[in-house]
Amino acid sequence: MMAGCNSTFRLANPYLSDKETLYHLGISTDDNLQQRFGDVKYICLGGKNKRMENFANLLYRDLGYPENSEVDDASKPKEERKLIDITGSAGRYSMFKVGPVLSANHGIGPASLSVVLHELLKLIHFSHCNDVSFIRIGTSGGLGLEPGTVVITDTAYNGLLQPHHAQVACGKEIHYPSVTNPDLRNGLLKCALTVTKQCVIGNTLSANDFYEEQARLDGAFCSFSEDEKNAFIRRAHDEYGVKNMEMESTCFTAMCLRAGVKCGVICVALVDRLVRDNVTGVKGTGVGTDNKLKEWELLPQVICAKYIKEN
Amino acid sequence: MMAGCNSTFRLANPYLSDKETLYHLGISTDDNLQQRFGDVKYICLGGKNKRMENFANLLYRDLGYPENSEVDDASKPKEERKLIDITGSAGRYSMFKVGPVLSANHGIGPASLSVVLHELLKLIHFSHCNDVSFIRIGTSGGLGLEPGTVVITDTAYNGLLQPHHAQVACGKEIHYPSVTNPDLRNGLLKCALTVTKQCVIGNTLSANDFYEEQARLDGAFCSFSEDEKNAFIRRAHDEYGVKNMEMESTCFTAMCLRAGVKCGVICVALVDRLVRDNVTGVKGTGVGTDNKLKEWELLPQVICAKYIKEN
Repeated sequence: MMAGCNSTFRLANPYLSDKETLYHLGISTDDNLQQRFGDVKYICLGGKNKRMENFANLLYRDLGYPENSEVDDASKPKEERKLIDITGSAGRYSMFKVGPVLSANHGIGPASLSVVLHELLKLIHFSHCNDVSFIRIGTSGGLGLEPGTVVITDTAYNGLLQPHHAQVACGKEIHYPSVTNPDLRNGLLKCALTVTKQCVIGNTLSANDFYEEQARLDGAFCSFSEDEKNAFIRRAHDEYGVKNMEMESTCFTAMCLRAGVKCGVICVALVDRLVRDNVTGVKGTGVGTDNKLKEWELLPQVICAKYIKEN
Repeated sequence: MMAGCNSTFRLANPYLSDKETLYHLGISTDDNLQQRFGDVKYICLGGKNKRMENFANLLYRDLGYPENSEVDDASKPKEERKLIDITGSAGRYSMFKVGPVLSANHGIGPASLSVVLHELLKLIHFSHCNDVSFIRIGTSGGLGLEPGTVVITDTAYNGLLQPHHAQVACGKEIHYPSVTNPDLRNGLLKCALTVTKQCVIGNTLSANDFYEEQARLDGAFCSFSEDEKNAFIRRAHDEYGVKNMEMESTCFTAMCLRAGVKCGVICVALVDRLVRDNVTGVKGTGVGTDNKLKEWELLPQVICAKYIKEN
């Protein structure tokens, strides 16, 4: 199943036919996949559709409006062409192509991520791509970090502090290891350090829930005490090297490893969870004012675009 | 924690303060919640933002353009007012208010659903609402049903065929029962039968994944054989009364039960999983042509709108 550097990417699933519909992406094997997507080398994913549209536009400018992009009207002058959402009317995700890069959103949580990742892996299989890297750019809660710090993931842990993704398949639970590619994470770090000094490699806790699984007290429910919360976050930080918490990286890294594609995760920490739960904080505290949040959210995009440009 | 029929809804979480930010909905306790949302009686949720916007507009017309809706400009003639997306620039979900109804999308999967549900439960808590019903309207794969059949959920099972939602909280797994409200599901059935004859009450398998957990062979990976797939789906159908599969109902019903609000789930089945995996089927089979899919997707909306109008 592993695809070597210069060999065409293949999925090992024996049940794949040569006629398939990528239902949630709104495309199918009838849509000239190899011609349109055969040159893809990077697939960048993030939660929000607007963020990934923004990232695509940023990249489009940075890469000098490459011809092999999916645009509204190729007869217009380059600078006036608009990137189009490839998913059309499917209505689940947004996806843009800029030269050798696909930029797509994955929504919130592992289930939403896994749907689009299954279909993207099928897309590069049917497009006969080779040497594709998957990079997730996201937001997260940091542990013991100044808000605005960039965290590049080493190993992703699930909410039970296990270094795997628990995949239920046909009624049985199977565990898949969840770790990023060493070359990719070191390359991202090197690039990140030219953009910001506040940048670390660390482990990431990836939860199937924003509130209780991440030990937040401020959801609709809370089944634990403040002391239990503090002990859990402290243990994740001290014993497991967890630097941030988000919701997709165990699933993301496990699926990429399983498919034999390189993967990296680069997230900005919007809050220090050793100090508080709420991302925006409270007005007047100076934590997470709207402008700061926007600036921080841009950091992984800028670093990722720079990495792609230089590699 | 249980809220009686005519008493104000309260959450039991002792850590809630009276200043809270509903981060992913883009609103906070500073936004006149009681005045704006105190009259809410129904919260309708579905996966896609466009579907829930469409549902809100359908309801707006059906309820005769009620004044207590969130619109762009209340000085315009009623029919010309446009419903606004309350979540503004938060960029995660869309939400609309039509009279006593909130219509919001929850994205794909339990994690995405749980984030918005936590914040909606906090919203009705801070708005001092009473007697609120939560209804999920969705799409699903049917088991032994003609595509286009409407399924109203009794009990939701997880991907291991257990009738509970497994919630990890602060490093521990806790199981919460996942069943709909009997009055609400019977009321929905009664209403549904006036719209379509193809309608049943049954159990729902709710998976944290679209492909392998739902025993589909056509994902990027497949860790089981076609025989194992068929045996699993057959067992779910024959031994557990599972009539359809989707991705949110265990989490949805468990959280609603836990909060003490009534909940119901009404989904249309787009494919018979005893026959095939792929939702759109293949061109020429007559399964899931675009027009049929749109027609089917509308059924839960029409039934839900009718139920709200008549209750």
